Amino acid sequence: MPGAAALGLAGPRFVVRYHLTGPEGAARALAEELRYEQTVEVHQEVVPPGPIREHLVGRLEGFQRLPSGVFEAALSFAIETVGSELPQLLNVLFGNASLNPGVRVARIEPPPEGFEGLPGPRFGRAGLRALLGAPDRPLLCSALKPMGLPAKDLATMAYQLALGGMDLIKDDHGLADQRFSPFEERVARCAEAVGKANRESGRRSLYAANVTAPSGHILRRAHSAKAAGAGAVVISPGLAGWDAVRELAGEAGPALPVLCHPALLGTFVADPRHGIAHAVLFGQLPRLAGADAMIFPTFGGRFAFSPEDCRAIVEGTGEPLGPCRPIFPVAGGGIRLERLGELREFYGRDVVLLIGSWLRLAGPDLIANCRRFYRAVTGADPD
Amino acid sequence: MPGAAALGLAGPRFVVRYHLTGPEGAARALAEELRYEQTVEVHQEVVPPGPIREHLVGRLEGFQRLPSGVFEAALSFAIETVGSELPQLLNVLFGNASLNPGVRVARIEPPPEGFEGLPGPRFGRAGLRALLGAPDRPLLCSALKPMGLPAKDLATMAYQLALGGMDLIKDDHGLADQRFSPFEERVARCAEAVGKANRESGRRSLYAANVTAPSGHILRRAHSAKAAGAGAVVISPGLAGWDAVRELAGEAGPALPVLCHPALLGTFVADPRHGIAHAVLFGQLPRLAGADAMIFPTFGGRFAFSPEDCRAIVEGTGEPLGPCRPIFPVAGGGIRLERLGELREFYGRDVVLLIGSWLRLAGPDLIANCRRFYRAVTGADPD
Repeated sequence: MPGAAALGLAGPRFVVRYHLTGPEGAARALAEELRYEQTVEVHQEVVPPGPIREHLVGRLEGFQRLPSGVFEAALSFAIETVGSELPQLLNVLFGNASLNPGVRVARIEPPPEGFEGLPGPRFGRAGLRALLGAPDRPLLCSALKPMGLPAKDLATMAYQLALGGMDLIKDDHGLADQRFSPFEERVARCAEAVGKANRESGRRSLYAANVTAPSGHILRRAHSAKAAGAGAVVISPGLAGWDAVRELAGEAGPALPVLCHPALLGTFVADPRHGIAHAVLFGQLPRLAGADAMIFPTFGGRFAFSPEDCRAIVEGTGEPLGPCRPIFPVAGGGIRLERLGELREFYGRDVVLLIGSWLRLAGPDLIANCRRFYRAVTGADPD
Repeated sequence: MPGAAALGLAGPRFVVRYHLTGPEGAARALAEELRYEQTVEVHQEVVPPGPIREHLVGRLEGFQRLPSGVFEAALSFAIETVGSELPQLLNVLFGNASLNPGVRVARIEPPPEGFEGLPGPRFGRAGLRALLGAPDRPLLCSALKPMGLPAKDLATMAYQLALGGMDLIKDDHGLADQRFSPFEERVARCAEAVGKANRESGRRSLYAANVTAPSGHILRRAHSAKAAGAGAVVISPGLAGWDAVRELAGEAGPALPVLCHPALLGTFVADPRHGIAHAVLFGQLPRLAGADAMIFPTFGGRFAFSPEDCRAIVEGTGEPLGPCRPIFPVAGGGIRLERLGELREFYGRDVVLLIGSWLRLAGPDLIANCRRFYRAVTGADPD
């Protein structure tokens, strides 16, 4: 058998904390099983003695009962199991484990230098603030919808949202390349509209084009959006794959801020005994992939996330994570204007608040509604 | 407002059956909400009157209480909401709905002509049988592992598995491009080894190279694998995104059978009240994406799927689905040799049985173990 050096096993290890539900004996047995399941994926009797058994098989570094009654198993894995590829990091993290009941990924602890090929967000909180010229207030976002509106109507909406003071104006995640508003035309018109509003207002609102698309089209659409004047891109990793985020944020991408939308991701957090914890799914994973902001459904909206879930997400977007910069949590999903005070209090300043429908239900004048939103959040007028 | 024709709303509609958990009133309200949530994604008061409201908003075509007590809502959607892109089909299917508790996608009913751009599997059951020269028996599969073995040892294993009569010899899904067995070297050696075994045996075993990789590398690796002599590819859509399957199966792909691995997908079926039903996740979705075979963890192995779950998966791989051919269910996940009779009985002939570790634990001679496996499943010797 080759030695550890020949296997390239000289690198550091990273830790994944799993929460395991069940009686202690079963939880311990499952923790032992995950050492194999997430790496060599063979029965332990089949693992050859030597460096594969000693280094590549996961190590159980800690096992404890938490106050909630759940057991936490801290497993460490050789960085070489991942190589330099995000899909394989996801595999070691939760690939086969996702097929076991009662397993939840509670935290990822990368080595200080992080994972090869995953430097994290290009902009992060500070970079996005610098682009927007908004050094210390909460940021504001709205979405262009409903699907079915022609591009020129979406562009009018984008213009009004920008004039009203929205920092980020994003395509709804359901605007793809349908014939009622084809990608190229929509993006060109909306980018132009936001640019016009910026020239009139003197502000720097960013239009985020949705580039969620078939695999071969994502980068092309992102570059085309940038050429048309878009200031950011939005993508749904649940629909397009997490690696698409890395691709957009990386060297081959358009060098624009990347927003992530949670479409299709909800199942991972739906059962507290299974899946991927809120802090990981909406905080650590998008950062590892290179997103600059992650949208999630806040408490007080139309989805079922609790204040504790949201607190965990905020932590995941900001706490230390190897070399990855902190990113913005984007709280959305049915925010009503009358709840803004409470949300403002809860989230503090390092947040993006995303309002869709309720900005339009508040009255016939969209610009006036935006200004009301802005004032409620920042305590000042956008001008 | 533009008319329905201008919106391109002349096409057919497709139906999604959702299973909703809860009291009837709440289930009905949720069904109504999904009409908007999965399409226009705005509060219904914001939807402009006319064709968007009449055609693009989902329609509730049926609502009934099932014997299990769950409510089934049949929603129809205009084909134009999807356009011709798989990520957007996933979005209409379960994008925001995944963020709601108590919603499960139970079935997709495409129009007879299917979805634009999604013709389904290139080979399907019949095509794969023709390639293998195995017109009517169950097929056999094993995997190359553990990770950490150098390419030459994996190739030796591939040679023995092919000589022993395995139809499909696949890379373990955790073999990516790590330095201990880089993709190019591994694939070249394993393809060569299976080719050598085929020349000696006169059979037509296929080596399936794992092409789960960062976005820009998947097609390139697939073509490189084909050039090296690989007869199939394997990909994990949970890790790489479902659209990567479509890309591999489509015109730009290598024209090889595509196997899918379930890594990271387990969460979607973990809670029977939420997510995506087994028949959809392991049957309909892979077919729509173009896979020719879908691996899942069978009952009687080390994961928690029930016989009913497995029966549903088999149905999903074979029942009518627009223009999509039937594909092979690949039952794996800890199959022991002594359970083969039961599994053979349960699955019948249109199945691939995948054995990993237990083929090696059965004795020191891997070729002899394969032949025992072959005999137990087919009642004959491989020669």
